[in-house]
Amino acid sequence: MAEEGPGFAGALGRAAARTESMLDACLPKADGPAGQADLAAAMRYAVLNGGKRLRAFLAIETASLFGAKGSGAERVAAAVECLHAYSLVHDDMPCMDDDDLRRGKPTVHKKWDEATAVLAGDGLQTLAFEILADPATHASAAVRAALVLHLAQVSGYTGMVGGQAIDLAAESSSRPLSGDEVKRLQALKTGALIEFSAVSGAVLADAADEDIARIRAYAGALGEAFQIADDLLDVTGTEAEVGKRVGKDAGAGKATFVDILGVEGARDRAEMLVAEAAENLSPYGPAARCLIEAARFVVDRRS
Amino acid sequence: MAEEGPGFAGALGRAAARTESMLDACLPKADGPAGQADLAAAMRYAVLNGGKRLRAFLAIETASLFGAKGSGAERVAAAVECLHAYSLVHDDMPCMDDDDLRRGKPTVHKKWDEATAVLAGDGLQTLAFEILADPATHASAAVRAALVLHLAQVSGYTGMVGGQAIDLAAESSSRPLSGDEVKRLQALKTGALIEFSAVSGAVLADAADEDIARIRAYAGALGEAFQIADDLLDVTGTEAEVGKRVGKDAGAGKATFVDILGVEGARDRAEMLVAEAAENLSPYGPAARCLIEAARFVVDRRS
Repeated sequence: MAEEGPGFAGALGRAAARTESMLDACLPKADGPAGQADLAAAMRYAVLNGGKRLRAFLAIETASLFGAKGSGAERVAAAVECLHAYSLVHDDMPCMDDDDLRRGKPTVHKKWDEATAVLAGDGLQTLAFEILADPATHASAAVRAALVLHLAQVSGYTGMVGGQAIDLAAESSSRPLSGDEVKRLQALKTGALIEFSAVSGAVLADAADEDIARIRAYAGALGEAFQIADDLLDVTGTEAEVGKRVGKDAGAGKATFVDILGVEGARDRAEMLVAEAAENLSPYGPAARCLIEAARFVVDRRS
Repeated sequence: MAEEGPGFAGALGRAAARTESMLDACLPKADGPAGQADLAAAMRYAVLNGGKRLRAFLAIETASLFGAKGSGAERVAAAVECLHAYSLVHDDMPCMDDDDLRRGKPTVHKKWDEATAVLAGDGLQTLAFEILADPATHASAAVRAALVLHLAQVSGYTGMVGGQAIDLAAESSSRPLSGDEVKRLQALKTGALIEFSAVSGAVLADAADEDIARIRAYAGALGEAFQIADDLLDVTGTEAEVGKRVGKDAGAGKATFVDILGVEGARDRAEMLVAEAAENLSPYGPAARCLIEAARFVVDRRS
C-alpha cells in the first residue's frame, strides 16, 4: 500500500502506519515471565498482522474532517483495531468458525494453542477499553466515558458478540434466514463496529449532532457494502487472493447476502450503498473525498 | 445466607440481593432471535449462579463506609461480578482448566457448548465496562472513566488475564515456581480484582486518597488470604462441600501457597493477613466491622 499521494490509498496507508505505531506503544512487550510473555507475543501477532486498517482509517479520517487535534484519533483507531482483532482470534477458534489461516498466516490457536487464543482475545478486548478510558485519548472525561459506553454497546450482546451468536445458530438451523434477518445479523456482527469507528472520530472532534448523524448514515451504508463485498469474495475470490479459506460460507450453511440477492443482485446493492455513502458526505465537499473513496474501495477490493 | 442481622453474614446477604437485582436489570433478557437468546441465557446462568458475591459486598460496603449515595455501588458491584463470571466461564473451558462443575452445577460449555462459553464470557466482559461507563453509575464522567481504566488495568494483561497465562505456563513447566512467583501470580490472577472491588466503592464515594490507600492495603491482605484459603480448600475440602472438583491443583502441577508454605504455614500466613486487614481499617472503628469480619470469613469458609 502506497503511503504517498493525496488519494484514498495514501490516506489508508498513512492511517495504518500511525495506528500501528500507536498499537506498538499500547500493546504489552513480550518480556514478562513465562506464560505472560507468550500472551503478549500472541496479542501482538493478532493485531500487528498486516490488516487493511479500514476501521482505523475511518476513525482517523473523520477525526481529521472535523478538526480533532493530538493523538486521540490514533488511540481510538488502536482501540478499534484491538477490539476487531480480539473478535477474529475468538471467531477463528475450532469451536467457532475453525479457521487455520488469517491473512495467509496461521491463526493464533494454530501458532500457539487454544488457551492462548482465548486469553489473547480476552486481553485485547480489555486493552481496547483501557486505551479509550486513558486520559491521553481526550482531555474530557465525558468524551472518554461516552466512547467506552458506545464501544461496549456495539461490541457486546447488543452488537458484535450478539451477531456472532445469531450467525452460529443460523449455520446449524434447517431454516434459512430471510433477507431482513441477514441484514440485521450483519449489522450487529460487522456493521456496528464499522459505524463506531467512523462516529468515534467525529465524537473525538466534538462534531455537531447533525454531523455525527451524517457520519453514522455514511458508515451504515459503507458497513453493509463491506459485508456484501465479503460475501461476494467468498464466492468469486481465490484463497491466494483473499488470504483465507473461501467457499466456506456455502459449505457451512452460512447466511449471506449472496444467498438472498444472488451475485448480480448483491453487486447492484453494493453499488447503491456506495452512492448512498457518498451522498451523506456531500455537504463536506472535497474534504470528504478520501472517505467517499473508501466506500468505493470496500466494494472493489480483492481481499 | 441470612439476610437479616447486623453482622457480616447479614451484610453479605443484603449486598448479594441488591447486586443480583441490579444484575437482573443489566443482563440481556433471553428473548432475542435464535442464538442471541441462548447467549443471553448463558450469560445469565454464568452470573446468577449463587456465588458468594464477596467482590460485590466489598464494593457496596466500602461505598457505604465513605457515604456514597444512589445505586452506583450496586452498579459497580454488578460490573465486578460480570467480570469475575466471565473469567470463570473461560477458565472452566476444556483448553484451560477443563472443569465440568462450578458451584455444583454444569459449567457453561457443558450445559451449552464451547462456542457459547467463548461468546458468553466475551459478552460479560463487555457488559462490565458498559455498566461502569453508563451515566447511571456516577454523575461525574471523570469517576466513570477512572473506574473503567482501573478495571481494565486489573483484569487484562497487567492483571487477571496475565495471571492466568502465568498459571497455565507454570502447570506445564518442570520448574516449580518460587514463593515470590506464586504470590505475584495470585496477586494478578485473583488479588487485583478483589482490590478493585474494595477500592471502587471508596472511589465512588469520592473518598480521600489516604482512605483509598487504607482500603487498598486492606484488600491486598484480604485477597492474598482468600487465595491461601482457596489453596487449603483444594487440599483439605471435599467436593460436596466446595461444589467443584478438589485435589486438582496437585494433579495439574499448579503452583499454590500450600506447596510453598505447607498446610500449617499457609494457615499461619492466612491468620497474619486477617490481622493485617483489620489493622488497616482500625481508624474507622465500628463502621468497618463488617469489612473486618469479611477477612475472617474468607479464611474460615468451607467453600
